[in-house]
Amino acid sequence: MKPGFVVSIPLSGERFRVIYSITGSEKEARTRAEEICVEQTVEFPDDLVTGGDIRDHILGHIESFRSVSVSSNIWEAAVSFAVEIVGGELTQLINVMFGNFSLKRNVRVEGLDLPENFLKTFKGPRFGIPGLRRILGVVERPLLCTALKPLGLSNKELAELAYLFAVGGVDMIKDDHGLADQPFSPFCERVQRCVEAVEKANRETGNHCIYIPHVSSPADRIMEKAIFAKQNGVGGLMAAPGLVGFDTLRSLADEPRVNLPIISHPAFVGTFVASESSGLSHALLFGQLQRLAGADGVIYPNYGGRFAFTREECRSIVEVAAKPMGHFCPIFSMPGGGMSLDRIPEMIETYGKDVIFLIGGALHKMGPDLIENCRVFMKALK
Amino acid sequence: MKPGFVVSIPLSGERFRVIYSITGSEKEARTRAEEICVEQTVEFPDDLVTGGDIRDHILGHIESFRSVSVSSNIWEAAVSFAVEIVGGELTQLINVMFGNFSLKRNVRVEGLDLPENFLKTFKGPRFGIPGLRRILGVVERPLLCTALKPLGLSNKELAELAYLFAVGGVDMIKDDHGLADQPFSPFCERVQRCVEAVEKANRETGNHCIYIPHVSSPADRIMEKAIFAKQNGVGGLMAAPGLVGFDTLRSLADEPRVNLPIISHPAFVGTFVASESSGLSHALLFGQLQRLAGADGVIYPNYGGRFAFTREECRSIVEVAAKPMGHFCPIFSMPGGGMSLDRIPEMIETYGKDVIFLIGGALHKMGPDLIENCRVFMKALK
Repeated sequence: MKPGFVVSIPLSGERFRVIYSITGSEKEARTRAEEICVEQTVEFPDDLVTGGDIRDHILGHIESFRSVSVSSNIWEAAVSFAVEIVGGELTQLINVMFGNFSLKRNVRVEGLDLPENFLKTFKGPRFGIPGLRRILGVVERPLLCTALKPLGLSNKELAELAYLFAVGGVDMIKDDHGLADQPFSPFCERVQRCVEAVEKANRETGNHCIYIPHVSSPADRIMEKAIFAKQNGVGGLMAAPGLVGFDTLRSLADEPRVNLPIISHPAFVGTFVASESSGLSHALLFGQLQRLAGADGVIYPNYGGRFAFTREECRSIVEVAAKPMGHFCPIFSMPGGGMSLDRIPEMIETYGKDVIFLIGGALHKMGPDLIENCRVFMKALK
Repeated sequence: MKPGFVVSIPLSGERFRVIYSITGSEKEARTRAEEICVEQTVEFPDDLVTGGDIRDHILGHIESFRSVSVSSNIWEAAVSFAVEIVGGELTQLINVMFGNFSLKRNVRVEGLDLPENFLKTFKGPRFGIPGLRRILGVVERPLLCTALKPLGLSNKELAELAYLFAVGGVDMIKDDHGLADQPFSPFCERVQRCVEAVEKANRETGNHCIYIPHVSSPADRIMEKAIFAKQNGVGGLMAAPGLVGFDTLRSLADEPRVNLPIISHPAFVGTFVASESSGLSHALLFGQLQRLAGADGVIYPNYGGRFAFTREECRSIVEVAAKPMGHFCPIFSMPGGGMSLDRIPEMIETYGKDVIFLIGGALHKMGPDLIENCRVFMKALK
């Protein structure tokens, strides 16, 4: 290969930016930023890319570099990439953003800055906050979602629980994420029984409660399960991008035969936010990427619960999930864990009213009468 | 729900074990291990699971607990789970292993201990070391794989490179992982041109070099691309489980219409091994999980290169990738980065002869005559 490579198609000149935070001395951080430009694109000896289109356009460009914290040696670099290298694929966007660099230390991705034209490549959430509110018939208040558990119950027992929750007035009932297609709770039967139970309750209450099964499963069966669930009357689907890949969420959200709200579960993605100097920021992982993938609601651990998220981290997700982003509608945060009656005012102050509180075990802990427990909670929310 | 839940099907009593390392005081570590038993299964208030099948069988059991390092406060807990809660799905195995616990700190998964009967649920690698050697016609020596790059070249230029590499005698030529379906290098045309180039070279050399395109792409297009590639004569497929999910690898490996060696690329999974106290061990992520998912070769950063892996970490992967594991054949390690002629003896000492060396940029750096560079490298390997 000769120096001065020419790219065979005209490039638009349009670029998107990835914001990285880098820990180290200024010299180390600048070197890291330069490495990002090469490693995330051509992955080729720098001295052999001596000029031409590839050097000028395909390589990443450092657009800005600044100190974030002198005492902690943290720097921020904004690196831009040609939109053409993504080829319109979410998988490849993630690859360019952090594919190989996930294997290095002391670099964390803080966020994406995507031009409006580029965002048009993605359909985004089909329902978002306005769409889900319309389906549920709830104009303004925070919403309540609960989960069917514990794992090990039969579908008949899970459906009985679903009925009680729906009569009690919760807005959404989802499978626990541990429910898959086990012999003691096969997927298709669970869907049919739970839909039936929730519809019966809705006829009695006049509410619009929806049942949301968990569809994370073998790659070649997910779409089939999703379409089965749709045909059998579910009100949404839950999937975990950590288990099935972000683009599987996107494919579910885009599929006309599915046409259902998509809820994202955080199983197996927590390690991405386990370190302050590596991985991804909370806002990027739980806000921006999920929205790009078409999730209408994103579950993540509430602060003050049994997980390690801080109030600020939770706030950063809410902000990104709702802030203007091309044609994308805002999406719901679904904080889970650590919820109790007396924390509701504080939670609303943190998350605002456009939030779905996820309450599982806590509803059982309030006492043996599940319908009454739900009513007490709903009353407090209203 | 009443205490004393009964599971509606007979349970086999068979359990698999997950080995966790936990950082903290002995008391903290024991509490963490107990939390794992609950969080990774029923995710339900412990005091409400008072007895019966769910307490006895569905909850995780701590099988052993021991000190690993007193000075570093590291403990090892082996937790067993009923095979029934996995329901035969790789997605759900990963979910039970580390779904919610990925969101907690100071716990790392070291490995899986899977009973032989349970392993039969998975087909595993279709080719492995013996199958790939048979295809390539190379009985004993280490294999050489190179990558088509830099990103930005046209398919015509990439195919010209492929021809030179194949004439030079390398065994495998893969797409760079940055190659997707970009307008300057559309997937289908790339496959056709590169297969043609490598076949032409093989006719001249009498070798059995194979071309391996990268198929990580939108979830609803991967299988279609894989089948297209197969029909057009490729010799294997590369996919990145970080981008498409581990089970997508499994679905490609299992699919009879594909029937090709599968190479796993580490893009976007590095964060799992970025911390010594969180995430996954190198051996689990690059050895065991890939093999479970049916990969025949697994790419990971070589030690002493531009990534942060140590020799011991690389060795731990090789060991797990080849050690006895039910009906699974051993698979190839494909260390990449930091390879040079003078390191070959050291590399063979580290990885053994059953290894595929991955050399990209370094082949270009040796000089302008790519055929000659390959020949020099192949000669050193032989």
